[in-house]
Amino acid sequence: MPGTPPTRFVYLGPQGTFAEQALRTIPAAERGDRTPARSVPEALDAVRAGDADAALVPLENSIGGAVGVTFDELTGGTPLMITREVVLPVEFVLAARTGVHLDGVRAVAAHPQASTQCRGWLHDHLPDAQVVDVLSNGAAAAAAADGSYDAAICAPIGAAGHRLVVLADKIADHSDAVTRFVLVSRPGPPPPPTGDDVTSLAVYIAHDRVGALLAVLMELAVRGVNLTRIESRPTGEALGRYAFFLDCTGHVAEDRFGEALQGLRRICAEVRFLGSYPRHRFPTTTDERPVPAPAGQSDTDYADAAAWLARLRSGELT
Amino acid sequence: MPGTPPTRFVYLGPQGTFAEQALRTIPAAERGDRTPARSVPEALDAVRAGDADAALVPLENSIGGAVGVTFDELTGGTPLMITREVVLPVEFVLAARTGVHLDGVRAVAAHPQASTQCRGWLHDHLPDAQVVDVLSNGAAAAAAADGSYDAAICAPIGAAGHRLVVLADKIADHSDAVTRFVLVSRPGPPPPPTGDDVTSLAVYIAHDRVGALLAVLMELAVRGVNLTRIESRPTGEALGRYAFFLDCTGHVAEDRFGEALQGLRRICAEVRFLGSYPRHRFPTTTDERPVPAPAGQSDTDYADAAAWLARLRSGELT
Repeated sequence: MPGTPPTRFVYLGPQGTFAEQALRTIPAAERGDRTPARSVPEALDAVRAGDADAALVPLENSIGGAVGVTFDELTGGTPLMITREVVLPVEFVLAARTGVHLDGVRAVAAHPQASTQCRGWLHDHLPDAQVVDVLSNGAAAAAAADGSYDAAICAPIGAAGHRLVVLADKIADHSDAVTRFVLVSRPGPPPPPTGDDVTSLAVYIAHDRVGALLAVLMELAVRGVNLTRIESRPTGEALGRYAFFLDCTGHVAEDRFGEALQGLRRICAEVRFLGSYPRHRFPTTTDERPVPAPAGQSDTDYADAAAWLARLRSGELT
Repeated sequence: MPGTPPTRFVYLGPQGTFAEQALRTIPAAERGDRTPARSVPEALDAVRAGDADAALVPLENSIGGAVGVTFDELTGGTPLMITREVVLPVEFVLAARTGVHLDGVRAVAAHPQASTQCRGWLHDHLPDAQVVDVLSNGAAAAAAADGSYDAAICAPIGAAGHRLVVLADKIADHSDAVTRFVLVSRPGPPPPPTGDDVTSLAVYIAHDRVGALLAVLMELAVRGVNLTRIESRPTGEALGRYAFFLDCTGHVAEDRFGEALQGLRRICAEVRFLGSYPRHRFPTTTDERPVPAPAGQSDTDYADAAAWLARLRSGELT
């Protein structure tokens, strides 16, 4: 239903994980229906089938790296469009039932990635505790709540949801770790430009990777478009072509970005537009964005240059 | 012990997963000690501490994307060096105890990534079976062996190790999926060039990402060095500089590669050398590599050009 605000949301479950926490930062999702999915493909298929209006799925994790399955699902099958990003600090807490104290913790339930990210803290504060692997941050909180283990490493929302007491917060070794989620819908007009937008692309080039990639970057650089992320995908190699995922500054509605996209269209084997959407901004940080278009790269500059060329072609040289 | 072949190996456990299968393709590891580690940091710390000679850890997965924790561990802390890569096809099997037949399978144990990768096969062949998440491919095989579940999605080595019968093989939806592992040791002289080598680098640049990245790629392209992988890492962004992981064709001992490396050293905030090592070759595929150095890029060409410049500088113009 293009034009209708989404009301039915699906997210990478289970309940009580960072994906649910990220989804609930979106006002429409806080008011709407929120259904957990077992996997990223299941979440996106629910949108494709019309069973949900939008899916919130992880795109990259500053510790775990890119979430390849999300990229592959976005570039394969029926097209979908990213309409929003949510960047969430990964703030792990150690949580336990009321009455459990830190010096009484012998067994900690944790997802293996979570305990890896909190390794230094565990070494310093619970050197003798046994860490037991469980399947998700949500499952860790549930296991502490039902008494299977003394405590859990989990998301703040998982502790709150299971009425656990936070024994220690911000226990991750890298305090600036973030996870980036995207909200994905069926195709429709992109959200309007805000002056501080991201455009995600999948670009396919044939052979000679460094030379072809140089040409791609020059198409962007000459229009003042910056890259905020680049990742090559290994799958295409067997097929003799290479795929790159790019996050660029700018919006498809801007003249300079439109010209860059047309340049990519001409030189690449294939370009898939994955969406233009506002950049996530942390409300509490001093953030120097939005960055204005570089000199000579505004829509006004493009309109002026186009009018000048038209005059040249019509014989007006003044 | 530089120069001594490694005999004590550690790998990302548990037993019966693809990492063990990859390690056992290395003859010295097949003869030596093989100890599973709970996590990538634990495996690498065992090498740093001298408790193991080498660690086999995953670097990228063509479905799951890059394994960020491995990159971060390789670029932080005491330096380590990649000395070998092993690329393993991800061949999932459905395995069960003797006497269980496919039409009797009601509950399948699987790691969530494994069941996601076999989603199409499960839909076609076991549409009514319940898929139960477990913590690893090795744990799935163990759960089928002890009768907790009817069958497991696991690695061939997991089925063999638990004396399971393979009910179906190659059940992954993407038959060309691979995982790339690297063998990591304490620093020492790199293995000698083979003519078909990979060099892994972490490159840090300041600001203006697309312009600085263009300059990096030009340093490589002008020496005929190709890129086989590129990935930006999000962590550095808050610090005002950006990190890229690059896999390049070539070896640090080659003149053209040495010149490219010196160029990167001059223009980048920091360059970390992670190792030069032979490219993995699949013995069964027709493989057009090794690719000879491009015209004018051999060590002989570099020696000839250097001698010519020396003559110019000494006043010999003939």
